[in-house]
Amino acid sequence: MHTITFLQDLAVVMIIAGLVTVVFRRLKQPVVLGYIIAGVIIGPHTPPYPLIHDEATINTLSELGVILLMFSLGLEFSLRKLTSVGVPALLAALMEIFLLFWAGIEVGRLFGWGTMDSVFLGAMLSMSSTTVIIKMLGEMGKMKERFAQLVFGILIIEDILGIAMIALLSGIAMTGTLGFVEVGRTLGRLGIFLAVVLVAGLLVVPRLTAYVARFKSNEMLVITVLGLCFGVSLLAMKLGYSVALGAFVIGAIVAETREIHRIEALIEPIRDMFSAVFFVAIGLLIDPKMLVVHWQPILVITLAVVVGKVLACTFGVFMGGNDTRTSLRAGMSLAQIGEFSFIIASLGVTLKVTSGFLFPIAVAVSALTTLSTPYLIRGADTLTDAFLRMAPRPLVNTLELYTGWVGQIGGQGAGNLARTLLWKWGAQMALNAVLIAAVFIAGAYVGAHPPAWLSGLGLDGH
Amino acid sequence: MHTITFLQDLAVVMIIAGLVTVVFRRLKQPVVLGYIIAGVIIGPHTPPYPLIHDEATINTLSELGVILLMFSLGLEFSLRKLTSVGVPALLAALMEIFLLFWAGIEVGRLFGWGTMDSVFLGAMLSMSSTTVIIKMLGEMGKMKERFAQLVFGILIIEDILGIAMIALLSGIAMTGTLGFVEVGRTLGRLGIFLAVVLVAGLLVVPRLTAYVARFKSNEMLVITVLGLCFGVSLLAMKLGYSVALGAFVIGAIVAETREIHRIEALIEPIRDMFSAVFFVAIGLLIDPKMLVVHWQPILVITLAVVVGKVLACTFGVFMGGNDTRTSLRAGMSLAQIGEFSFIIASLGVTLKVTSGFLFPIAVAVSALTTLSTPYLIRGADTLTDAFLRMAPRPLVNTLELYTGWVGQIGGQGAGNLARTLLWKWGAQMALNAVLIAAVFIAGAYVGAHPPAWLSGLGLDGH
Repeated sequence: MHTITFLQDLAVVMIIAGLVTVVFRRLKQPVVLGYIIAGVIIGPHTPPYPLIHDEATINTLSELGVILLMFSLGLEFSLRKLTSVGVPALLAALMEIFLLFWAGIEVGRLFGWGTMDSVFLGAMLSMSSTTVIIKMLGEMGKMKERFAQLVFGILIIEDILGIAMIALLSGIAMTGTLGFVEVGRTLGRLGIFLAVVLVAGLLVVPRLTAYVARFKSNEMLVITVLGLCFGVSLLAMKLGYSVALGAFVIGAIVAETREIHRIEALIEPIRDMFSAVFFVAIGLLIDPKMLVVHWQPILVITLAVVVGKVLACTFGVFMGGNDTRTSLRAGMSLAQIGEFSFIIASLGVTLKVTSGFLFPIAVAVSALTTLSTPYLIRGADTLTDAFLRMAPRPLVNTLELYTGWVGQIGGQGAGNLARTLLWKWGAQMALNAVLIAAVFIAGAYVGAHPPAWLSGLGLDGH
Repeated sequence: MHTITFLQDLAVVMIIAGLVTVVFRRLKQPVVLGYIIAGVIIGPHTPPYPLIHDEATINTLSELGVILLMFSLGLEFSLRKLTSVGVPALLAALMEIFLLFWAGIEVGRLFGWGTMDSVFLGAMLSMSSTTVIIKMLGEMGKMKERFAQLVFGILIIEDILGIAMIALLSGIAMTGTLGFVEVGRTLGRLGIFLAVVLVAGLLVVPRLTAYVARFKSNEMLVITVLGLCFGVSLLAMKLGYSVALGAFVIGAIVAETREIHRIEALIEPIRDMFSAVFFVAIGLLIDPKMLVVHWQPILVITLAVVVGKVLACTFGVFMGGNDTRTSLRAGMSLAQIGEFSFIIASLGVTLKVTSGFLFPIAVAVSALTTLSTPYLIRGADTLTDAFLRMAPRPLVNTLELYTGWVGQIGGQGAGNLARTLLWKWGAQMALNAVLIAAVFIAGAYVGAHPPAWLSGLGLDGH
């Protein structure tokens, strides 16, 4: 009776998930945390014990949840938006990711964790939660403000670097090394894969969806889009990348089609169903006792996330030429981890290279930082006022001078048509070059100066 | 690597399903047949052979397809619509179901099939295809005509009797008997189950969905509705009914909520995804060689479906007081079998009481009768004209006299307020009483006069 077990599990997952999310919405907490708590409740570690019988099938469905989550992220991403990301967002995202990646590795070393656990922790901490931020800013009615636009730009860069990170982590986990040659080879192969899929996809997919859309059948469009989504995810998996990577890329390609709004509306309920299963499946992995045992790392990591992200993002946005208030608002919006971190954590579980305590810690940190996010956003203005009042006058003046100076550089090109056009044409290529160069330089640096925590691995890159 | 196998199967299913449906839409054939052909192509019986690896998981997902198909059928059903079904539709549906059930059993006996195969064949033939009819009438722009309203009424009665039939078939398959006491007990238990679920559901579900809808989150509504759907399906299964029954009932309850239109839009893509898997899974079961071996039953059954349904429905609608043209149009629209028959066939497979040849035959008959449906609908007017021209004058006059006489009876109550109100209040109860009485009388008759084909079973009912 395989089917009855499965149906029972699915019914339990959906009913408990539904109940807990209602409670969480009433408490104005994000639904994602509700799903995870639901998973803990029906999981094997908490009474009443035997609520889920066929964990393998639930995990298979939760893999579909990862694919559909990343596909939706890709749908919202859109290659065109990339060209509108400004220098401040790029600076802030790069600073945030490097600082938090380093902080994660250092914290792991502090608690004596293995290399892989530390590396995955670093990757998890470097990503913020698009879901939480969009929900919070939406509820506060701040979606249209300038700092919100900066935050969305930062999240887009995070998505790209997160995708590169997932590819690198898969490579590290499989070869066990992080040498210069490996990083280069992995990124080179990734670049070729992305280039081929993007070019082929942008040539074929818009024509395909336009053709299918002519039949005016939602059913055909859903099946076609799901076929594309699962097909490219499978292709990525077969080539040694994660399904998350493939799903994101095909999502970004589908985002370029004319039918994107119809497709988004059709995919949303399917994503909601499977992402609920994914988050509940995370809860199934969590033993609440782990949270008590690991309270120290949880507190330290939470502190590192909040302080690190606020500092890195505020500084990056400010360096890009924004005033103190906007910079602090943007920085304080990004101080949490969420679904992308869970996807990275589940990659570690799938590849069997991370320890069991990483997931509960990530969930606890995500819960704490999510809870603090609305207070941080609301506190940004108070903090700015206090800073402007209490900081020494010369410092405030210098900061304002810098903001004005960078703003002037950015404004000079206006009115010059040739330069404007050149800027538009060159923007995407330049941005891509900067991104790739940054990752390469970082890889080269790490390869040439392996930090102590890498000494456990064979470094055959040089 | 369970997950990679599963993802590969799902990707193959969606891609092939997408391709074949495009071809079928271009050929103006229903998408359902396209899915089944896709299943045959990727199935184990046709080259290239090894396209599906994990049939068990595909079958589990196809079970979700059955649940969501029946749930959608319930959503479109709505208890309120039941009160607007007229006497002609009721008469036609009862005649159709009894005639075709009998015809199916006789055909099974003719070819020397086992009792269970014959009984399931009878049940399969008695149902028409809502999907095919709605699609065909929609494409022809005939949805608003009087005969179309009659056809939809007949389909609603078919749904109810089909649900009762599924419960009876499960009972027969498990006890192996069809005595008076068994039928009575099964229908009695079914009645109690339906009454309890309906009363509890109508009290709780509208309040629940209204409460959840207040949060204005599609995600929460999807999860809540899926929880209800899977939960009640599971409850039905635990009590010994099929999941199809439970899904239909909870669908009919959800149809009474204020949020029905939002819910329908949200559930549609999920249903499309899983029903595609369900129909493809049917294709997986089919060995094309079976079609060649069983060409005789396929032809005979196709003929029985077309002739039997046209005769029974035309006669029933005419008896209810419609003119010859309307009656023939309605009768000729209903002459096919489809998804409900596949659900009954898969019930037989799940209960392991039917033979392997039943599915391919049902699919072939469904294909042939679906292909003939548009020609029959278009041919109805030609046939009526020919009949009115060639039939003896006295017969035509008698028919018109009858139509006028029944119409007069129906019209007498108009203007009398008390009678109109009484009619409205009493309509649903009377209709239900007629339905239940009809099934009971039929059961009693079969129990008292067991036909020869029942002699193989132990009849301990008297």
